Amino acid sequence: MLPILSKQETIVSVYRTAHFNAAHRLHVPSWSDEENKEIFGLCNNPNYHGHNYQLEVKITGPVDPITGYVYDLKILKQLIQDNIIDAYDHRNLNLDCPDFAGLNPTAENIAVVIWNKLRPYINADLKLSIKLYETERNYVKYNGN
Amino acid sequence: MLPILSKQETIVSVYRTAHFNAAHRLHVPSWSDEENKEIFGLCNNPNYHGHNYQLEVKITGPVDPITGYVYDLKILKQLIQDNIIDAYDHRNLNLDCPDFAGLNPTAENIAVVIWNKLRPYINADLKLSIKLYETERNYVKYNGN
Amino acid sequence: MLPILSKQETIVSVYRTAHFNAAHRLHVPSWSDEENKEIFGLCNNPNYHGHNYQLEVKITGPVDPITGYVYDLKILKQLIQDNIIDAYDHRNLNLDCPDFAGLNPTAENIAVVIWNKLRPYINADLKLSIKLYETERNYVKYNGN
Amino acid sequence: MLPILSKQETIVSVYRTAHFNAAHRLHVPSWSDEENKEIFGLCNNPNYHGHNYQLEVKITGPVDPITGYVYDLKILKQLIQDNIIDAYDHRNLNLDCPDFAGLNPTAENIAVVIWNKLRPYINADLKLSIKLYETERNYVKYNGN
Amino acid sequence: MLPILSKQETIVSVYRTAHFNAAHRLHVPSWSDEENKEIFGLCNNPNYHGHNYQLEVKITGPVDPITGYVYDLKILKQLIQDNIIDAYDHRNLNLDCPDFAGLNPTAENIAVVIWNKLRPYINADLKLSIKLYETERNYVKYNGN
Amino acid sequence: MLPILSKQETIVSVYRTAHFNAAHRLHVPSWSDEENKEIFGLCNNPNYHGHNYQLEVKITGPVDPITGYVYDLKILKQLIQDNIIDAYDHRNLNLDCPDFAGLNPTAENIAVVIWNKLRPYINADLKLSIKLYETERNYVKYNGN
Repeated sequence: MLPILSKQETIVSVYRTAHFNAAHRLHVPSWSDEENKEIFGLCNNPNYHGHNYQLEVKITGPVDPITGYVYDLKILKQLIQDNIIDAYDHRNLNLDCPDFAGLNPTAENIAVVIWNKLRPYINADLKLSIKLYETERNYVKYNGN
Repeated sequence: MLPILSKQETIVSVYRTAHFNAAHRLHVPSWSDEENKEIFGLCNNPNYHGHNYQLEVKITGPVDPITGYVYDLKILKQLIQDNIIDAYDHRNLNLDCPDFAGLNPTAENIAVVIWNKLRPYINADLKLSIKLYETERNYVKYNGN
Repeated sequence: MLPILSKQETIVSVYRTAHFNAAHRLHVPSWSDEENKEIFGLCNNPNYHGHNYQLEVKITGPVDPITGYVYDLKILKQLIQDNIIDAYDHRNLNLDCPDFAGLNPTAENIAVVIWNKLRPYINADLKLSIKLYETERNYVKYNGN
Repeated sequence: MLPILSKQETIVSVYRTAHFNAAHRLHVPSWSDEENKEIFGLCNNPNYHGHNYQLEVKITGPVDPITGYVYDLKILKQLIQDNIIDAYDHRNLNLDCPDFAGLNPTAENIAVVIWNKLRPYINADLKLSIKLYETERNYVKYNGN
Repeated sequence: MLPILSKQETIVSVYRTAHFNAAHRLHVPSWSDEENKEIFGLCNNPNYHGHNYQLEVKITGPVDPITGYVYDLKILKQLIQDNIIDAYDHRNLNLDCPDFAGLNPTAENIAVVIWNKLRPYINADLKLSIKLYETERNYVKYNGN
Repeated sequence: MLPILSKQETIVSVYRTAHFNAAHRLHVPSWSDEENKEIFGLCNNPNYHGHNYQLEVKITGPVDPITGYVYDLKILKQLIQDNIIDAYDHRNLNLDCPDFAGLNPTAENIAVVIWNKLRPYINADLKLSIKLYETERNYVKYNGN
């Protein structure tokens, strides 16, 4: 039903935020306890700690000249819910989430994993960027390059 | 009165935010009611709904070596007030604002319109970017390209 | 299924926030246009304007000694969704919401109406308070007294 | 060194905020798994989830007429650090924190525990109140009564 | 022009926020430099430091049954501008503001001074409360008692 | 102790925020009082005013495939504390901070100075960007080019 795009394109970025609450632990299995403690400090606590992660998904592309949309944010909201929130919210990232089997759940790695999970659902001509807040003071961004 | 710039330029971006409260409705007149409802959902409500729009205007250019300013934010504040806030605040974007005659007032289109309205007032060697928050969770950015 | 309360009660307040986006207009029908304009200014715009209303619902009562809950916030979230968000979100408060037939939709009146709508669903021994943000700078609170 | 108070007292509240990141699980051991799941839902996840808890400590009392302080917020900051942040930050509240042995770590119970931990350090003539944000949308307040 | 109130009153609080940026120094002239340094630490810096103060003014009283207002927030905004912002914004509280001659400009004292300055402009049957944020983490509240 | 990087690099940005409270005055010594007043307005107040500056430091580079870190934010936090916060917090930028001798302490210039101070501590293959909020409505960004 969506109309075809005009030749002369206006490029705009659209953003949608979401939240999930999860437990995690930073740990490199091949390292000794001392090395893990030295590099990760309190974040290495064996019984886990947790965060209210805030996720910002950004999609960049041409504005459809009829709808005035780059991407329907209702659809993006649902994509995020189905693929990210339902998978991670109120979970232990290390124990409950196969995405982090063998991958240290740092904010950097979580952002890269989220980018990889959402990328197939979004047209190849649209750019995707992921920003993830672990706390109000610590956050990361991944553009897929 | 402003001194001429040095040859070796330091490029900095400056930002100023502002707010306006407006009603709007998303609607494509050439579509049937069913098509409008399908694409725009609740945003198509014929009696309008509204938002506290938050606007962020970003200007990028060289720092003046004497004043230490890229652009006087007092002047930018007044430009935004005269051209954007006075035109849209406490208005119905569809009915009261000629800028949106024939243009669906999506966040994308509002950002593009604001960019076009401010661009003539700002020196051509300065870059302009517009970020517009429709809600805390939905926002857009337009850089003019 | 919820256990009975102990005699020695610990009184705690719990809060849940929600959001709705609505159009409204401040207007007293029995007044002249001049009087309306004088008192309500831009808020009297005949074509409406709008806000991202932020609602905070506060319930005060004893902590259940077994669950550790005053009130299950999942239930409160659903109460707010069913009775407030579904009724007001993406609506025109003056035209679409019978709650404001004959009642000027000021932030004060909206807060009182929301209190009255939620009060019957919450046990009489629990106190209810409503805070409503019309903008980040203007808000109101109603405790039911 | 602090001067004695005047007879005519001006009563002011002072607030200090702090943050800690912790894992927790809501669970009543005497209940069946089905009962726990029914009441606590996702919060009952056996592998824990987590939050960025934001704590607000409020102390109410007379302004010292010489210093202009109700309570030195540098001292309050240190009290919170030593007694709360060092005990809970980057911890699992259920497993690592004896304060919650036999106590379900709901936001309500955490706030009451924090109040009880800080109360002995603050003069009896000063009122103490604890506000605890589990998320931006869910929070609680305890005044000690 | 405002209509008289009904007998059966609905009591609501209304809030308006504002901001001012000021320099200050905490210092008790009758103390030695060592005592000042001991009690006020960095805040005693002789060359001043500064804050973005955020002010919240709260007025509590009956809702006017015709207008739906407790107090016209446009009028309150102007009262705050004329009496507080114009007096303190971009000023040095110790040197430029006679309100703090002989009074240490702690957040507590600033809040009490603001309350005293606004009280005469607001009807005696309305309650007034002042909340003042010195930083996001340190703030105070004064209710006039 | 940190492992060497893989050839195939994943580029991520990491951010850390911090705060400092400082006094300042905008002033060009070679200008007359009238010129200073005309350009800088209230910011030229001879007795200074102040701000709660919020600083955001962004580092961009490859994710270490073993740790999952781009840059240890605990180390970045300490770098910011030692080089920026300890130097500027609760100071008068014009009088107490040699970094601004002969340099007007506009937000632009402060951001450039902070970039220059942190750059030597961060590996040359990592990009550095500084965002500085003077107020919630006025801020700047400097990428070092």
